[in-house]
Amino acid sequence: MKKLLIISTVLASVSLPLFAGSAFTDAEDAVKYRKASFQLIRHNMMDLGDMIRGNVPYDAARVQKRATALASLTTLPWEAFTVPGADKASGDAKAEIWTNLQDFNGRADQFQKDALALQTAATGADQAAVKAAFAAFAKNCKACHDKYKAD
Amino acid sequence: MKKLLIISTVLASVSLPLFAGSAFTDAEDAVKYRKASFQLIRHNMMDLGDMIRGNVPYDAARVQKRATALASLTTLPWEAFTVPGADKASGDAKAEIWTNLQDFNGRADQFQKDALALQTAATGADQAAVKAAFAAFAKNCKACHDKYKAD
Repeated sequence: MKKLLIISTVLASVSLPLFAGSAFTDAEDAVKYRKASFQLIRHNMMDLGDMIRGNVPYDAARVQKRATALASLTTLPWEAFTVPGADKASGDAKAEIWTNLQDFNGRADQFQKDALALQTAATGADQAAVKAAFAAFAKNCKACHDKYKAD
Repeated sequence: MKKLLIISTVLASVSLPLFAGSAFTDAEDAVKYRKASFQLIRHNMMDLGDMIRGNVPYDAARVQKRATALASLTTLPWEAFTVPGADKASGDAKAEIWTNLQDFNGRADQFQKDALALQTAATGADQAAVKAAFAAFAKNCKACHDKYKAD
């Protein structure tokens, strides 16, 4: 009872989800969520890229930390594209996403697979393997942006 | 060579990190990062809370997905509190964080442990265990906000 009270107190000020399957209050809430997801992805990717390019010293533990974060973060943004009204909401997502949803979802799946491969490579000591996995990850990231993200 | 070219193309427009140890370009960049982290934490927590309170049907797979996301997301925001100037940057972090850094870091560690316990509970079929783990997680979340987050 006390536990339920704590949960109720914590969540009391939080509005109920409009879409039972997603927990987003509305389409703009979903846009915020996917933007936050991509921002965290970008940051972790950028730090990895800096280490791989030698802008900062290569640190195997930090590489592994970044790759692990990416393996999780890349699973997050997609639910935010499927809420009602997502195609009409603000943000820099092109309308082509929703007219090519199968292609878009395929790229999203590949992106998550790339991140898992990167995480696997990052657990090993082979820096060339990390670089190759990062290159594949970055390439598919860019290709999807070129097609589906407004400048 | 081609791979390096791809990486360079992808990262070409990204500015170099100001702080080699963190990959943040400046303290405001760090504020954005921690805000994005907490936003994703809040969303996943809210959906869990809705299922636990019965506002939406309890779905074991979805509970597990949310708990797994939280186990990873709760590791992210802390690096953004340690960059130079973080205590002077905008945002709703109280100055008390930096005068009580040991306490703050202890709470951050506990929060990550709570999330891992929640993830473990979510892999099982015992809903009462999930509720208890979620209550502990939510309680410590709120306690830290009460002390260190401006309204």
